[in-house]
This record gives sequence, C-alpha cells and structure tokens, in this order.
Amino acid sequence: MKCRVCREPAVIDIRRHNANFCVEHFLRLCRDQTAKAIEEFSMLSPGDKVLVAVSGGKDSLALWDLLVELGYEAHGLYIGLGIGGYSDRSGAMVRDFAQARGLELTQIDLRADYDTDVPTAAKATRRVPCSACGLSKRHLFDRAALDGGYDAVATGHNLDDEAAVLFGNTLRWQTEYLARQMPVLEARAGFPRKVKPLVRLGEREMAAYCVLRGIDYIVEECPMAVGNKHLGYKEALNEIEARSPGSKHDFYFGYLARASHRFADAAPGVSSGTPGDTDSASVGRCERCGSPSTSNTCAFCRLIEASAGAQPVTITEKGRLK
Amino acid sequence: MKCRVCREPAVIDIRRHNANFCVEHFLRLCRDQTAKAIEEFSMLSPGDKVLVAVSGGKDSLALWDLLVELGYEAHGLYIGLGIGGYSDRSGAMVRDFAQARGLELTQIDLRADYDTDVPTAAKATRRVPCSACGLSKRHLFDRAALDGGYDAVATGHNLDDEAAVLFGNTLRWQTEYLARQMPVLEARAGFPRKVKPLVRLGEREMAAYCVLRGIDYIVEECPMAVGNKHLGYKEALNEIEARSPGSKHDFYFGYLARASHRFADAAPGVSSGTPGDTDSASVGRCERCGSPSTSNTCAFCRLIEASAGAQPVTITEKGRLK
Repeated sequence: MKCRVCREPAVIDIRRHNANFCVEHFLRLCRDQTAKAIEEFSMLSPGDKVLVAVSGGKDSLALWDLLVELGYEAHGLYIGLGIGGYSDRSGAMVRDFAQARGLELTQIDLRADYDTDVPTAAKATRRVPCSACGLSKRHLFDRAALDGGYDAVATGHNLDDEAAVLFGNTLRWQTEYLARQMPVLEARAGFPRKVKPLVRLGEREMAAYCVLRGIDYIVEECPMAVGNKHLGYKEALNEIEARSPGSKHDFYFGYLARASHRFADAAPGVSSGTPGDTDSASVGRCERCGSPSTSNTCAFCRLIEASAGAQPVTITEKGRLK
Repeated sequence: MKCRVCREPAVIDIRRHNANFCVEHFLRLCRDQTAKAIEEFSMLSPGDKVLVAVSGGKDSLALWDLLVELGYEAHGLYIGLGIGGYSDRSGAMVRDFAQARGLELTQIDLRADYDTDVPTAAKATRRVPCSACGLSKRHLFDRAALDGGYDAVATGHNLDDEAAVLFGNTLRWQTEYLARQMPVLEARAGFPRKVKPLVRLGEREMAAYCVLRGIDYIVEECPMAVGNKHLGYKEALNEIEARSPGSKHDFYFGYLARASHRFADAAPGVSSGTPGDTDSASVGRCERCGSPSTSNTCAFCRLIEASAGAQPVTITEKGRLK
C-alpha cells in the first residue's frame, strides 16, 4: 500500500478516492479538502475571525486545528452540558487541547451559569434530550458569535453527519428541513453566519486526522444519543458505502447540485433537520435576552425558566436518567 | 394475537399497520389496499381490460388474482427470457396458475420467437443482463397491450420494490428518473397506460397472500439479479423499517405527496429508474417494428439484430455465464 502522491508507505486508504496516503499527504489532503469546501461554498474569507463550536470530539477539535492551520483567527467555544461524566471528560479534552496550543477558548457551563443541565432541562420541558441540547447549543453559540463580533460560527459536521441528516430528512420528505440543509447558512437578523467546513471529509478520516496530529479527543458517543434514529441512518448508509464507495459523497453533493434548489421555496427560516434543531423565523425579539423569537420569550429562556427550582436529574454512565 | 377486525386468532401481524389479521380479513385487507391504490391514483376504471405482466413470482401472480377478484378483465402475458432453469420453472408456475383458474394467458418466448435470450442478448449488446431483460420486457408488454386493445399494462411492483427504486434514484439524485417514478404512467403515443396496483402492499404480505390463497409461485430470485444494487437498497430499507415500522410507506407516499411535483420538469419521456428501464421519448418510429424510437431502429430490434448468429450464452444455476 503506497501513498498516491509520493509512493512511500501509506498509513490510510480512502476507498471513495480509490487511493492511499502517507501521513504527510493524508494531513495535506484533509487541509486541502477543508480549504476546497470553504472556497466551493464561499464559507469564509481569508483572515476571518471564526468561532468554532467545540465538543471535545474528533470532528470539532480537528476542525479547530485545521482552521488555525489554514490561517483563520479561530477561537473555541465549549459548552458544559452537564451530561454526567461524559461532559466532565469532554470538557477536559477541550481545555487540554486549547492550553497545549495556546488557543483562545471560551467556556459556558449550563449548571454554573444557568443553574440547569441537559438532563434536567429536557425533563422539565418534556423535550427529548437531543432537542434540549441542540436548542441550548444553538442559542449560546449564536449569542457568543454576535457578541464577540465573529464572522461565522463553524461546526464540525462531517460528510457522514450531513449524509445521515439528509437521509433522515429524505426518508420523511421533510421539505422544510431539506430546504435548509446547506453547508452555509448566511447571517440574518439576530443569527450569525454558520458554516460546515468538514463536509468533504468522512468520520473515519477525522479520527485518523486526530490520531496523526496527536489530538486527544473523546471517543465515546454522548450517552443520551445512543440508539437514536440518526445513528440508524448512519449504519444504513455505511452498508451502502461499503458496497459502493463514494455513495455518501454522491448522495450529499448530488443533492446540493441537482435537488436542493427544488426545495428552496419550502419554508425558509426553519430548522436544518439536525436532530433537535428548531430555529425559528426571526419575527420578533425575546423580551428577556433580546434573541430572535416568534413568541415573547425565546425557547432557551423558557427552558431556563422551566428548569428553575426543578429537582436536578442525573444520568448513569449508560445514559439512563435517575 | 387476535385479528383486529373479528378478534378471532390471527395468522399474520403487519407492524406498519400495528395490527394482526385472520386469514379472511388479511385477504380482504389485500383486496382493499389494491382497490384503494387503484382509486387513489385513478389507475383503472371498472371493467377495464388489463394485461398483467406475469413472471411466475409472488407479486405478479397475486396481482393477477387480485385484479380478477376485483372484477377486471385481466389477462396474463408471460415472457420466456431464457434464463436457464429459472425461466423453465417460472413459466411452469404461470401456466399452472392460469390453467387451474381458466384464465387467458399469452406466452412469448425469446428463444422460440426471436432466436435469442437474455444472457445471449446481454453479452451481444454489452448490456448488463437486467438492462437487456427490462428493455425486452417493456417492449413486448407495450406491444402486446397496444395490439390487444388493453386499457393498461399492470405490473406487480410492490411497496418494497418502489421504495427501493426510489431510494436508489434518491441516493444518486437522478432527477429524470425521480420525475417518472409514479404508480401510474399515462398512455402516450406508442405507449400503453402502465399501472402498479400493489404499491400499498409489501413483499411479505404478497408472499402471505399467495400462501393463503394456495398460489404456487417461484420463490428463488432471478439468478442474474443476485447481488445487484437494488437488493442492497432493499436490505438497507429493511433495517430502517425494522427500527421504525412504516418508514418505507412514509418514504414512498411522502415522495408522491410532497416531493414528486418538484421533479416534474426533469426530463419527461425517460425511464422510471427501474433497473434496466430506458424508455425513450417518442420522437419517431422504429423502421422495423413501428415502435416509438429516437433512432431509426429501436433498442429492442437492435438487440435482436445483435443477437442474430451470436453463440448462445447459457448460465449456471448460480447465475454465472458460461
């Protein structure tokens, strides 16, 4: 197995590219594919100040590393979600990463700063945890990006993530989600620009990138997400991909090229269909925090309010509530 | 396990209906769902004369039986494709079925009538077998329906088939195929009306229908189709369905209700995307057979011509050419 570029021994094969790569050229491939996605979809301009949504997982840490490598002023924002030991461990990964590289990291902690956490808020609002979590993260990332004067929020959604979300939205023909499933969402009143620079790279490549760059990341899945439909869609697509390498890429990029415009009229201003994603059209302002909201109080402020005084819910290592 | 209708012991559970049925009410369900599909999509009018494309498999024999039960003048057309023992056995099933019920059956045999067969024609035209087969069947069914004055050709595509084809077309966003994937294709110059009355019934229900109605059918898959992508799509959807019963139904009928019109402008007059399906727009006539054709000689006549004098190709029981 030899590197496609230099013919030296390869360390990874990428079947959808029908090629193998050595360490140096694999890392270059990741940078090039990230730069290509950024350029192809006009995600960022040179030197942009970017807020990276970091979770401690492979994708977001790799993204942060790649954006710094590509010359962007990339700062991290980590949100402590209060999901038991999982949150403790992922927060430590993020802090270690930022400290070792001298990168600027902002931390928000739901428990310390808002007196709640995802399990408690989910129970108090009768939302599924992924919904309460997504809602909180979007609100806090949006807010921090606007307050900090960032040009964009960047998230680590990779090709596997985007293909799985597209698959779920397609299986149910959720046209309003399909209309929003783009790698860039432009800024609009009260919302920052949002970009997904890793859409040309797969999950396996991101894990390999971290290993080869010496980035420690949290390997475990969020215990509250185990068994959700999104993971089932990933498995189904993985089987298709194993039979026909490149299927995921063709599915996602074929959608963008040949079908997405056909859904453009389907309810703009709603969610991207990422599990738990329920942005609302900006028709008014929350009277508490000033964020865009269709009702007097935005969903995040309602969630904080509902959690106030609620008995904290803790979770076991297996993700069960107790 | 009790019948949803009469509370007597049930013989089958249908998870997407969240219900169980006894023999009598299951058979009624199949008739009702067929009648509902016919009405919902205006497939047929009462008393229509219908040509049923029968292969000897569960779907086409059940369809023939159901159409007769529903009062249509339904005649069968069987095409001997020359796929070794598989064709011999499937032909026998069809003849037995028709004879036992006194139904009118027309038979065409590629070898006897056209001096070729699917394996030979596929090799001679360098098509994949499913393509040569689909092309031949469409041509001969269309021709027989027009010559015999039938109101429509009915095929036994069930919900699993249609969902799998839709999945394949969606994975590649083949918009021209998506535009044609409807349960009814209206008649147009040189083409008969085509209908798929089983789209509300699944593969498992059709097998149960045949067993409970005492219909012998060929259980084996066509040996030339083994391992094709279509079967991979079925497997992937089966896993999704197992986790969320009703997913296939929602995928297919959601497409028809909320997305199909968005693809209507994408190249009408082309194939439905069923493997091997390559109808052409009717811009002219084949100078040999008079069928619609974009070139002087239609694809079927070219296939017959290419096969003439070719060394016959036979296949093993495992579908290998020899």
